[in-house]
Amino acid sequence: MRILILGGDGYLGWPTAMWFSNRGHDVHVVDNGLRRRMHTDAGTDSLTPIVSLAERADAWHGHTGRTIGVTHGDLVDWETVAGVVADVRPDTIVHYGEMPSAPYSMKSRAHAVFTQTNNVVGTLNVLYAIRDLVPDCHLVKLGTMGEYGTPNIDIEEGFIQITHNGRADYLPFPKMPGSMYHLSKVHDSHNIHFACRVWGLRATDLNQGVVYGITTDETAIDDRLLTRFDYDDVFGTALNRFCLQAVIGHPLTVYGMGGQTRGYLNLADTLQCVDLAATHPAGPGEYRVFNQFTERFSVWELAEMVQKAGAEVGIDVSVGPIANPRVEMEEHHYNPTHTKLLDLGLRPTLLNETLIESMFSTIARFTDRVIDDHILPRDRWRPEP
Amino acid sequence: MRILILGGDGYLGWPTAMWFSNRGHDVHVVDNGLRRRMHTDAGTDSLTPIVSLAERADAWHGHTGRTIGVTHGDLVDWETVAGVVADVRPDTIVHYGEMPSAPYSMKSRAHAVFTQTNNVVGTLNVLYAIRDLVPDCHLVKLGTMGEYGTPNIDIEEGFIQITHNGRADYLPFPKMPGSMYHLSKVHDSHNIHFACRVWGLRATDLNQGVVYGITTDETAIDDRLLTRFDYDDVFGTALNRFCLQAVIGHPLTVYGMGGQTRGYLNLADTLQCVDLAATHPAGPGEYRVFNQFTERFSVWELAEMVQKAGAEVGIDVSVGPIANPRVEMEEHHYNPTHTKLLDLGLRPTLLNETLIESMFSTIARFTDRVIDDHILPRDRWRPEP
Repeated sequence: MRILILGGDGYLGWPTAMWFSNRGHDVHVVDNGLRRRMHTDAGTDSLTPIVSLAERADAWHGHTGRTIGVTHGDLVDWETVAGVVADVRPDTIVHYGEMPSAPYSMKSRAHAVFTQTNNVVGTLNVLYAIRDLVPDCHLVKLGTMGEYGTPNIDIEEGFIQITHNGRADYLPFPKMPGSMYHLSKVHDSHNIHFACRVWGLRATDLNQGVVYGITTDETAIDDRLLTRFDYDDVFGTALNRFCLQAVIGHPLTVYGMGGQTRGYLNLADTLQCVDLAATHPAGPGEYRVFNQFTERFSVWELAEMVQKAGAEVGIDVSVGPIANPRVEMEEHHYNPTHTKLLDLGLRPTLLNETLIESMFSTIARFTDRVIDDHILPRDRWRPEP
Repeated sequence: MRILILGGDGYLGWPTAMWFSNRGHDVHVVDNGLRRRMHTDAGTDSLTPIVSLAERADAWHGHTGRTIGVTHGDLVDWETVAGVVADVRPDTIVHYGEMPSAPYSMKSRAHAVFTQTNNVVGTLNVLYAIRDLVPDCHLVKLGTMGEYGTPNIDIEEGFIQITHNGRADYLPFPKMPGSMYHLSKVHDSHNIHFACRVWGLRATDLNQGVVYGITTDETAIDDRLLTRFDYDDVFGTALNRFCLQAVIGHPLTVYGMGGQTRGYLNLADTLQCVDLAATHPAGPGEYRVFNQFTERFSVWELAEMVQKAGAEVGIDVSVGPIANPRVEMEEHHYNPTHTKLLDLGLRPTLLNETLIESMFSTIARFTDRVIDDHILPRDRWRPEP
C-alpha cells in the first residue's frame, strides 16, 4: 500500500510512519514543522530529544533498509498538497496534519483564526486533491472525541438513530465541542462528510481520545527514532503531564474538581487503530466514524493511579488541584460507544501501574531537559475580567 | 437602539438598514462591496439598477432626514471590525456580511476555500469584537435553512430533544448541508453557539428560507433606494429567477424533477423577522435558533404558480426542466418547525398570484437590463468526468 502521512513529524505521525514502513508499505510523510516552530517560539520543547525529520528518516533507513519519503510543506498551500499527492499517488492518506492544541487555540482571536483557518483549509485541500487526483484513495482523518463534548446521553460513533414525531433517520451525532481547536475538527468532519456524500470519496474519521505513552516497538530501536513527549501547558496531555510531574516532584495539576471524564488510549493502540482503519478501508461514498479510545478515566482517577504507581517505586506524588482554566463540566455523564475498532480486531493495551512505572523510567532518562516554568496553564477559556 | 448592519449594502442588508432607520434607530452599515465586485468580474448585474452605497445613504437622508452611517470594510480584517464596533458601540449587530452563494462556493477548490475562510473568519472576528468591546450586544446572525439539509425527520428550530438508552438531552439539531457555502454557515453556527456557552454572549441565529420579492415600503420611495434583484446563475434564487424568466419569455429552469422542497419567505417578512429578533433579544449566554420562513413549496409548485400568474396577465410561461447541477434529493420529506417567530408576532405575507404579478410589473420596468447568457447554471456539484 502507498501511504501518505500528513503531519508525519508529530507525536503520532512519526511512529505511524515507522509502523507502516516496518510492515512493508511505501510511506511518504509531509510536515511543515509547525510543532517544532511553536515550541521554539514559546521557549518550550519535547522532553525527549527530537532530531530533524531528515535525520529520523536516515536513522530509520540505516536500521531497516527501508525508505520513508519526506516532503517539507504546508497543507494550506494547494501546490504542496497537489504536488505530493500527484507524486505519491497514495492508496491511503493518514491525516494528522493539524494544529492540535486546545489551549493554543484559546490564547487570542488571532490564535483561534489561525487554528480554524489552518485546519479547515488544509483539510479542504486534501479533499480536493483526492477528488481530482486519486478519487479512490481512502482518507483516514484524525478527529477527536472532544468534538462531541459531554452530552447527557451516550455518545455513538459519529451517527445516531433518531426517532421523532413518528419518523426515523440515522443522522450525524450532535456536536458541542469545547474549544476553538475542537470546533475546527467539527468543521472538518462536516466538510469530509460532504465530500463523501457528494463526490463519493471514502473516509474514516477517527474520533480519538487522549493519547498517552512514549514508546512503540519502532521508537525503541534508537534514540534518533524517539517520538516527542510534550508536557508543557500548550501541547501536554493529561496522563503524560502527570507522569512527568510525578517524576520531577511537581504536584499533579488537576483542573478544578477533576471529575472531567474522557476516553484514553495508549500510543501503541493509536497505531493499531490507524492500521485497522487503513487495511479495512471505507467504501466509495462512505463516511464512517470510529470512536478511538480504549478506556475511560476521570482526571482524578488518573491522578490517583499515578500516585499509586509512584508509591510502588518510592516516589511521593502529591496532587495540587488548581483553578480550572477551561470552561467545562467537572461532573457529567460520559459513556461513549467504542466497539467498531474492537470489532475490526483492536486488542487494547490497558493502563495499569506497571505501564505508568515504565513511563516513569523513560521520563527519568531525560529529566535534565525539563523546563519547569511552562507546566502550569496560562490560557484561560474566559478572558480575565 | 444602536444597530450595526454587516453586509448592509446587500439584497437584504440595505432594506434592513432603511427599515430600522425609519423606525428611529441609529443605523450604521458595513460592507466590502463584494457582491458588486463579483458581479463586475462575472459580467453579471442586478436587474434593478443600484447606485453606490454612499448615494443610497444620501438619498435616504434627503427623503427622511435620517442618517445611515457607512463604513467600507472587510469583516475578515480585524482592525475594521474592532474599529467600527468600538465607534458604534452597537446594542444589536445584524450580520448578513457573508459570501452567500452555493453555486459560487462549488465552482472550484479556491472558491470553496474563499467561501469558508471569508465567512468563518468574518464571524469569528465579530464574536471576538463583541466579547472584548460590547459583551452585552445581541448578535442577530443570518443562517440558512440549508444548514439542516433534508433529513427524513421533522426539522426543529436549532435543537432537538433526544432520548437515547434511557437518558435524554436537548442537543443541536444534526446538520447535513448541501454545499461548501452551506457548510460555512454550519461552521458559523457551531462557533456562535460556543461563544454563547463559554463567553456568555447573546445570539439569535436566523435559519432563513429562500427569500423572494423586490420591494419594501422603503425601497418604493425612490429608485435610488431600490434593493438589488439577482437572477443570474450564481446569485439568483428560485422564485425571483422564475419571475424574471416568465417576463422575458425564458422557460423556467426547474432543476431535475423539481420535487426539492424548501421554506420561502417574502423580503418584507425578513425585515419583520429581524426586527422581532432584535427587539426581543436573546438573554446573556443564550444561543437561540429561529427557523425563518413562512411557507413551503417544491420547485415544481413555484413554477406552476408563476405559470398561472403569467396566464392571468397574458404571459405564456413554459417550464423547461434541465439536468440538476446540484447533488440533492429531488423527492424527500420536509416539515420544519417554524413557530418561534410566529409566537413573537410575525404576520406572514403569503405568496399568491397577485404578489407574483406585482413582481412581474417591477421586473418589466427593467427588462432592458437583462443579461441573457448568465441565466443557465454553469457550476456542477460533481465535476465533469
